[in-house]
Amino acid sequence: MNIHLPRNLLVAQSGGPTAVINSSVTGVVDEAMRHQKIAGIYGAVNGILGVLREELVDLREEDPVSIRNLRRTPSAALGSCRYKLRPQDYARVMEVLTAHDVGHFICAGGNDSMETAREIDDLAEKRRYDLNVMGVPKTVDNDLLVTDHCPGYGSVSRFNAIAARDSSLDTEAIYTADTVKIIETMGRDTGWITASTALARTEKDEGPHLIYLPERPFLLDKFLQDVDLVYRRLRKVVVCVCEGLKDEKGEFLTASDKAIDTDRFGHRQLGGVGDYLARLVSSKLNIKARCDRPGTIQRVSMTCASNVDIDEAYSVGQAAVRACVEGISGKMVTLVRKPGVEYSCASGLVDLKDVALEKKSVPDSFINEESNYVTQGFLDYVRPLIGESLPEYSHLKKKMLERLLPPYD
Amino acid sequence: MNIHLPRNLLVAQSGGPTAVINSSVTGVVDEAMRHQKIAGIYGAVNGILGVLREELVDLREEDPVSIRNLRRTPSAALGSCRYKLRPQDYARVMEVLTAHDVGHFICAGGNDSMETAREIDDLAEKRRYDLNVMGVPKTVDNDLLVTDHCPGYGSVSRFNAIAARDSSLDTEAIYTADTVKIIETMGRDTGWITASTALARTEKDEGPHLIYLPERPFLLDKFLQDVDLVYRRLRKVVVCVCEGLKDEKGEFLTASDKAIDTDRFGHRQLGGVGDYLARLVSSKLNIKARCDRPGTIQRVSMTCASNVDIDEAYSVGQAAVRACVEGISGKMVTLVRKPGVEYSCASGLVDLKDVALEKKSVPDSFINEESNYVTQGFLDYVRPLIGESLPEYSHLKKKMLERLLPPYD
Repeated sequence: MNIHLPRNLLVAQSGGPTAVINSSVTGVVDEAMRHQKIAGIYGAVNGILGVLREELVDLREEDPVSIRNLRRTPSAALGSCRYKLRPQDYARVMEVLTAHDVGHFICAGGNDSMETAREIDDLAEKRRYDLNVMGVPKTVDNDLLVTDHCPGYGSVSRFNAIAARDSSLDTEAIYTADTVKIIETMGRDTGWITASTALARTEKDEGPHLIYLPERPFLLDKFLQDVDLVYRRLRKVVVCVCEGLKDEKGEFLTASDKAIDTDRFGHRQLGGVGDYLARLVSSKLNIKARCDRPGTIQRVSMTCASNVDIDEAYSVGQAAVRACVEGISGKMVTLVRKPGVEYSCASGLVDLKDVALEKKSVPDSFINEESNYVTQGFLDYVRPLIGESLPEYSHLKKKMLERLLPPYD
Repeated sequence: MNIHLPRNLLVAQSGGPTAVINSSVTGVVDEAMRHQKIAGIYGAVNGILGVLREELVDLREEDPVSIRNLRRTPSAALGSCRYKLRPQDYARVMEVLTAHDVGHFICAGGNDSMETAREIDDLAEKRRYDLNVMGVPKTVDNDLLVTDHCPGYGSVSRFNAIAARDSSLDTEAIYTADTVKIIETMGRDTGWITASTALARTEKDEGPHLIYLPERPFLLDKFLQDVDLVYRRLRKVVVCVCEGLKDEKGEFLTASDKAIDTDRFGHRQLGGVGDYLARLVSSKLNIKARCDRPGTIQRVSMTCASNVDIDEAYSVGQAAVRACVEGISGKMVTLVRKPGVEYSCASGLVDLKDVALEKKSVPDSFINEESNYVTQGFLDYVRPLIGESLPEYSHLKKKMLERLLPPYD
């Protein structure tokens, strides 16, 4: 094989969809178009499954407008998957890559997908097949190591900041209805998503009042005390919780066999913490409680997508292609925050083996001592990621008329 | 009392918040400013409770920018309540209105709030107190009689159309994860909100595939058959259900024993309808299922608000003031759809007694024969209410590369 001949590039989307993973594909395609070293630009249908099944699409055949509009299209346009390569799949992967002369393989995904990319890089090296494998970070969970943050996270954070703000306003407005609102966010193992709800608060005493992350053991009694304390002061409590909350023993709060399903990587699918806690508040504190749980809507909301996130997702796609063209392999693109007052990120590279399968938790410095809120340090970290400021709402002065009558009960 | 002297106007917000009930207050204030017959422009804090407690604010003291920005501020800025007047409250209501020389009382709310307005109108007439009482329609439930639709409904419909579309794309994208998505919407007694999710579908076979409203008895076996049928054809099913689904006996689905699960603490779990049906699909059909339930977020989402809805909420506020100034009382403003190709509404009036407490269900002509989807008639009804078209997403052609290898399992 002559390495100077142009070779084909294959891009795959993997894991849970986000609002911006399609923007990464646009970045890949736009950048690939600029390089003579790249011949065909292909997309795998449903990630690595598309490779195994030889379901590959020709992205040069797409209307340029469709490619551009992917930047504003949520979910995964090529299709995604959760599939762990079996040893018996390896030969097939190599067979398909060889048949289509794929010289560059780019996989956008989270820590499981980076493991798949690492395996393919290993495999190609062992078989002396000339292949550049690059990972593009993508996960609303924001739990990839090394990178400052992950494309997808800024948008899910913006969604949750807006949702928690709107839902808090809703809770504050009604004097005689629900007085404890629980908002359950995604986050199987880490609390990054839940933490972002803190951006909803623009003034003291606005919601959310309490935020619980799975990085700290969740203690039911302490939780009830926390809620009661806020309730006595404000008569309204907005609590944001992570679907993956765990107790002192490290077990999921809602680990009932019936409610839980398991995906191919052996991860248990959760849900129901918010309802459980709402019932607990009602029964133990005798305060009405209600739970909002937007579920997957939060990770694919283009209406609430962050412009910064869309741009960064695009740029990491471009960076992956540039690395391929330079003959780099076995790396994932990272975002590196530049020092300075104005927020900006450069792109960097990290070995796939250093990020595959690993998870980055929310650090202690981002969680308060009481384990029931985030710190200013976290707010400073997350604020630039959600892009434009939140929409401005009106605050009335509410100048009261002088009372002319005695009080009334 | 000299009826030619300018008198004060009092506006109250009542019932569940919406994205646009504040726009109605802007309409009321802006219109009231134009009339010499109106002296003070007051707002009741937390609806009728603010009257009872004599908690009234002076809206002429607000910054005009704040009043204008209310049009883009969700929830209820004056505060709302759910409170039914007790007979012993009547005297106090009259006392407060008299003390502050309120000559015009405008209440924005749903069918319960219209009953409160009707009672106050009755009361004033009996006590020969000169008062114009006007109702302003407001409810995401869209269940007020006579009016073509209710301000608040267009915006919750837009939210749900977008959410169902995004969530459907999410479900379609992942080949090896959740394959049945259940989206639970609000709507305790009527299916208007749930029905609006049908707007998510822009092409055949896109989600939602099934929609169930409380206007028809929900039959579990039929539901499972429906899901199975779609699943066999598409391998993906998106189902939208109303929180208020009822069985053949007219009982709420989640009030049945079947819906009760027990968590690991031994507490009985009474999940929502969506969670219950997701578990049912998993256990009976052995297909992975997941439920999204945005809850109150759907009714106060300004990011997804309908521009048509914001404008109409404003206009019904204005119309109520004009009616007051003309000396009309005991009426609710209605929206009257004009015939013609281009959508537009005029405002009308209806007696409060004809709308108070009553609920308008989704008519038979808007539900298909199988009771598992809406009709074109409903789509034609609802489409103009959500304002601008949904954001355009990219659709790739996905031209497949020629297969060079044998199939692989």
